[in-house]
Amino acid sequence: MNISAPRAELIGLDWGTTSLRAYLLDEQGGILETRARDWGIRRLPPGGFDEALDDVLAGWPECPLLASGMVGSRDGWREVPYVDLPAGLDAVARALDFVDSAGGRRLQLIPGLRHGPSADVMRGEETEIFGALALQPALAVRSALLLPGTHSKWVSVRHGRVVDFTTSMTGELYAAVRHHTILGAGLGAEDPPIDHEAFLRGVTAARDSGAAGALSRLFSARALVLAGRLAQQAVPDYLSGLLIGEELRAALAAGRIDHATPLQLIGNAPLCHRYAAAASCFELGMALPPPCAAALGLWQIARSAGLTAAALPQPRFHGAKL
Amino acid sequence: MNISAPRAELIGLDWGTTSLRAYLLDEQGGILETRARDWGIRRLPPGGFDEALDDVLAGWPECPLLASGMVGSRDGWREVPYVDLPAGLDAVARALDFVDSAGGRRLQLIPGLRHGPSADVMRGEETEIFGALALQPALAVRSALLLPGTHSKWVSVRHGRVVDFTTSMTGELYAAVRHHTILGAGLGAEDPPIDHEAFLRGVTAARDSGAAGALSRLFSARALVLAGRLAQQAVPDYLSGLLIGEELRAALAAGRIDHATPLQLIGNAPLCHRYAAAASCFELGMALPPPCAAALGLWQIARSAGLTAAALPQPRFHGAKL
Repeated sequence: MNISAPRAELIGLDWGTTSLRAYLLDEQGGILETRARDWGIRRLPPGGFDEALDDVLAGWPECPLLASGMVGSRDGWREVPYVDLPAGLDAVARALDFVDSAGGRRLQLIPGLRHGPSADVMRGEETEIFGALALQPALAVRSALLLPGTHSKWVSVRHGRVVDFTTSMTGELYAAVRHHTILGAGLGAEDPPIDHEAFLRGVTAARDSGAAGALSRLFSARALVLAGRLAQQAVPDYLSGLLIGEELRAALAAGRIDHATPLQLIGNAPLCHRYAAAASCFELGMALPPPCAAALGLWQIARSAGLTAAALPQPRFHGAKL
Repeated sequence: MNISAPRAELIGLDWGTTSLRAYLLDEQGGILETRARDWGIRRLPPGGFDEALDDVLAGWPECPLLASGMVGSRDGWREVPYVDLPAGLDAVARALDFVDSAGGRRLQLIPGLRHGPSADVMRGEETEIFGALALQPALAVRSALLLPGTHSKWVSVRHGRVVDFTTSMTGELYAAVRHHTILGAGLGAEDPPIDHEAFLRGVTAARDSGAAGALSRLFSARALVLAGRLAQQAVPDYLSGLLIGEELRAALAAGRIDHATPLQLIGNAPLCHRYAAAASCFELGMALPPPCAAALGLWQIARSAGLTAAALPQPRFHGAKL
């Protein structure tokens, strides 16, 4: 039994549009420490990427650095070309590129994935996916994954490779409609307390919209308030239910999901719970997300790319501060 | 033959959220003069409704005043309760209310219509509808009407009465998505020149989205640009085509329209042309809008309410400055 203190082996960065998260990982891929900053690529400090990197790493030991997410996009620090489907861990690890910071650090960058025919893209989610597949190897054989968010990703996996995916702009659409149309009139910028009943009412309206779809019901969020049949404070959750319900309705209509195959959620826990609640209105099964998928994905890709010396054991987590 | 100068008989106001339009009408409902101001109910001058009214009427003769639109809403000058469906000209004319301005003018206000079961509402469009029915009496028997706009209205008419309608927030959704999501990234606030091909490409994508609907294709407006398969400048019209196409797809799926019955457009000519072009992608017929429907609707309602002394002749227009 090894009772020595764990040694830092890799620093993984999940660097998106609006936030930066750093993981200090030990020689077994366990999380020693996590840091979060608001410095997404659109909100950098005055010193730009260099300052953000120096700050988030301050005091941490020297380790190989690997980053996923929009930091590798056209608007990021350096653009890393997408890897086309079908794509497994090996293809992604082979396509890393890097940038050297002003302070002399070398940051390896993970490419995103591209669906050739539709031109659809993801950047960052591929890392979470490979983390989830390592945690639950049964998913690698054949599974349907859903990573909800600003841009939800619906993903098909076969034999460890991403073979298909599509993006649904549900989160961003919600924000645009909530804050920039008449539906948000009379509400402040802050959302009121969660109204679970209003959420389910929205989901049900979307489910019952049939092939016409829930966009044709959007105005109900205003009309019901005018008629005194929906409280103004309930509009945000009604709208959230309507749009998440529409995402599920459309996925069923497109054959992306069915009632026989449970869908695996990956990502932010409260949002995943919201999707799981919506799924139950459709009598669909959804498995709640595994923890720390991003950190483990960074570890898996680093190992596959030869950035770490360690062989990959069964993943484990000590004191994860997610 | 009457060769005397026409006499002013009614002033009709089409007073919406963002604009105010005034018509000076003669004893036969013809338009003597039209004025337009930016003073929608959300953009009033410092002196409010009174100042806006005094200004738009300056120098015009004393006449009965009748207004349609949001001026009669909860956020308007005075709230006039909705009239429930089914509703004809007589029911609307009976439900007028009025407000007296500080300057001593009496402004009659037209109520909107409400669809009881869905709580859907319209305010202003009912006046355009009654104008169109007067211009084309064949429509009154049985017709499907479409008033495209910020909030498009899909309307069923039977025997002169509005019996059903639904709202699609297409115009407002377009603005929210265009200006407040990643899809508009890299574009200025002003729209680039019209790109008809991109518009039809968006319509086709919506048509081909099947029961899943075009919301599931929204992200294509970004992905195609990243892949170099759609010019950034073409995004606004692609998006417009996608959302108008979705409106038509949903209306077909819901059975609101079919390939046998031509749909009558009412409203703004350039926007109606856009809808007619989209309809041709679906092999749907749409009849282009009649002119001056709002002014004629105001005249019809005034006459039905006894605000004018004149009997209603065949409608005609001299020197309309629309």
